[in-house]
Amino acid sequence: MKIVIIGGVAAGAKAAAKAKRMLPEASVDIYTQDTHVSYSTCGLPYYIEGVFENYEKLIVRPVSEFEKSGINVHLLNRVTGINPDTKKISVLNLKTNENYEVEYDKLVISTGAVPATKGFEKILNKKNVFTLRTLEDGVAIRNKMREVQNITLIGGGYINIELLEAFVKNGKNVILIEKSPFIMPILDEDISILVQTYIMENSNNQVKILAEDSVNEFIGEDEIRGIITSKGVGFDTEMVVISTGVRPVVDIAKEAGIELGVTGAIKVNSRMETSIKDIYACGDCAEKVHIISNTPVWIPLGSTANKEGRTAAMNLCGEHKDFEGVLGSSVTRYLGLNISKCGLTEKEARKLGYDTVSTVVTKKDKAGYMPEVENITLKLIADMRSHRILGAQAIGCGDADKKIDSISVGLANNMEVKDLLDVDLTYAPPFSASVDILHSAARIIQSKLRN
Amino acid sequence: MKIVIIGGVAAGAKAAAKAKRMLPEASVDIYTQDTHVSYSTCGLPYYIEGVFENYEKLIVRPVSEFEKSGINVHLLNRVTGINPDTKKISVLNLKTNENYEVEYDKLVISTGAVPATKGFEKILNKKNVFTLRTLEDGVAIRNKMREVQNITLIGGGYINIELLEAFVKNGKNVILIEKSPFIMPILDEDISILVQTYIMENSNNQVKILAEDSVNEFIGEDEIRGIITSKGVGFDTEMVVISTGVRPVVDIAKEAGIELGVTGAIKVNSRMETSIKDIYACGDCAEKVHIISNTPVWIPLGSTANKEGRTAAMNLCGEHKDFEGVLGSSVTRYLGLNISKCGLTEKEARKLGYDTVSTVVTKKDKAGYMPEVENITLKLIADMRSHRILGAQAIGCGDADKKIDSISVGLANNMEVKDLLDVDLTYAPPFSASVDILHSAARIIQSKLRN
Repeated sequence: MKIVIIGGVAAGAKAAAKAKRMLPEASVDIYTQDTHVSYSTCGLPYYIEGVFENYEKLIVRPVSEFEKSGINVHLLNRVTGINPDTKKISVLNLKTNENYEVEYDKLVISTGAVPATKGFEKILNKKNVFTLRTLEDGVAIRNKMREVQNITLIGGGYINIELLEAFVKNGKNVILIEKSPFIMPILDEDISILVQTYIMENSNNQVKILAEDSVNEFIGEDEIRGIITSKGVGFDTEMVVISTGVRPVVDIAKEAGIELGVTGAIKVNSRMETSIKDIYACGDCAEKVHIISNTPVWIPLGSTANKEGRTAAMNLCGEHKDFEGVLGSSVTRYLGLNISKCGLTEKEARKLGYDTVSTVVTKKDKAGYMPEVENITLKLIADMRSHRILGAQAIGCGDADKKIDSISVGLANNMEVKDLLDVDLTYAPPFSASVDILHSAARIIQSKLRN
Repeated sequence: MKIVIIGGVAAGAKAAAKAKRMLPEASVDIYTQDTHVSYSTCGLPYYIEGVFENYEKLIVRPVSEFEKSGINVHLLNRVTGINPDTKKISVLNLKTNENYEVEYDKLVISTGAVPATKGFEKILNKKNVFTLRTLEDGVAIRNKMREVQNITLIGGGYINIELLEAFVKNGKNVILIEKSPFIMPILDEDISILVQTYIMENSNNQVKILAEDSVNEFIGEDEIRGIITSKGVGFDTEMVVISTGVRPVVDIAKEAGIELGVTGAIKVNSRMETSIKDIYACGDCAEKVHIISNTPVWIPLGSTANKEGRTAAMNLCGEHKDFEGVLGSSVTRYLGLNISKCGLTEKEARKLGYDTVSTVVTKKDKAGYMPEVENITLKLIADMRSHRILGAQAIGCGDADKKIDSISVGLANNMEVKDLLDVDLTYAPPFSASVDILHSAARIIQSKLRN
């Protein structure tokens, strides 16, 4: 049995390790154009900040360990094509520039995602313009950041909020440009506003947010020296990071005739099988199902990649395993403010046709007399018809992530509002409030559902 | 409509406030032998420690606020009897020593619990012997603690673990006597051992635990000066706190002919109705249903009292509201070690006849390269037949409470092991691990269920 895996950051690395454990006699080969496999891209902003000095800390499992367990890792070997008829892949060795073919019995595509840089093609090769995907990107951004004082971030999503924290902590001045009316457009606007306000009030005047704006003109030759926005704001800059979303890497899959989903990512079933026999896809290149709406979505996250890689491996090794889907659970922080969500936002839910009911509650996360007490603001969204909880967003210096994880487990178990009203959560003064914010929010929603 | 409430710490105070909000025209009267209503007994150990100076911080809602909203609070007025036929209660005014009667249309019994001090009757009136229930108890323990150096704690449950932390932080030497083989016998022994080991290793030699032992002899007249244990250990002591469990206060309910449950607490249905019409019971004096086993239990907790008080108020005001039951979710800490549980322990489950399968996993709670990373040890217990998750215990310097709250929500929604395998939890390096300890534990249990 020949198992071949394309790409090895999260899903691919997990699939390889799991497959080799399940079928020790099988050959398992990872092909990647990257210089590393099995690393935490989510940790790059903290490496850039300087939380730790050596980027190798981000490597989950070194190549030597893969090799020791009998998995062959082919770094700097780019897969250029898949032939499902002959069950072969074409590979270009980037070191020797040689092309060759490799046979497979089972193929796993885990090619991941890349920054979506449409509209920025002309400046991507400038010396001081960056995107963040690989370890090398992280090293380059960290090194450049240390040389400069004035940085421009384009895009106001997760990655740039984390980079903003890293840069502000390093004393830099940052201008962030976001085309939506508020940063973090993944959240509902009433919550995004709170995040944006917090950032403006807690960044020691180092941050300027240009919302509902975009770049009209980049100034500079080898390097970008200045920017003029669509609203006519002009400023100098020494460094630019573009994080305006990501797109799944699907080219070779598409060329091989593998079906893509409506989201543009590779369509898979719950066993991570693509439309072509013996070819699996998992991780950021694969489409997912949203558990709440039961609709296809593309939410690329490291935590999901891990589960999908494991699922692909189990199925290709002959064990039946379903991956039910995702909830879009995610979390980040900005200088003490925790920002977390799960399920559908209210705007997503309405777009899908749900008749939503929601509430926004602010409460202390622990007993008010404890020194560690902080606030959380929670938005809870439910479906007027089924009374099912659809999603939640929580921000605050308090344990927002704890609340969202609790709701995530509820969402995965079809929790209705009534199931949250009296749920027995742990209570002690240093940990929580005797009437939890989840109870308070559920009670308000419940009374709205009655009317 | 005359609503009368007996006792007003948590359940009673909540019931009064909720009833008055729902029926502003009704008269609402709280009768209590206590000097205060509506306070957080759970916060007393932190007041004793000195986390804050004024015990009034523990008062959730001062009497003046109750009075302002039209609720009459009768402090130091002990209810001595209930006559369900005439719908009257007998009251003794402890200030004037006068007896009088009060009519009710709806009666709420929320008399709470008191320390179970059986076997210690002879020493309870000694000047340096304490139990912890009321604000006055807290003040007395705090004052005495400051005068002494050597303290004896009898009992190794939640209250004494919290007092142990308070005393150790204040530089005291403490001997703790526990009759079980390990402290925290509410946990399974494999987890209790870890707690006990942590305490012994992290208390600066200030703590001695005498497990599987008990007091054989107290020495001293006005004050206890020394103790000799059943195993023959003798030592001097300057102060003794007895926390060997609690019992529900049910005397007047029992005398009135109200049915008690098998646990000895007042039997109630899901609407908090007792066996006698128009009489409700809630909080620590009332029996509860365990959601997992569907059996009657008596787990007195402040968080439950709040919900039951609210439920009683809603029902007596004419709105149908069920309280489904409890999971025994609880949490405490000892000098950085968080200790949390929900659902059934393995020993409880086995006693009830479940064919249990369990695992104990230790893992980092965040990405390994983040400075805030800590360990958690999680025990997960499932039912071999139904595959349902029965309970969990988590301890560690990491976010143990977060994990237990997630499982609590799952337990309330009949979560099976397979539902936990891939649940979409929030992931980012400062908050969690990409493969969460919940996933790891569920996977191990799943593989055990397969065999």
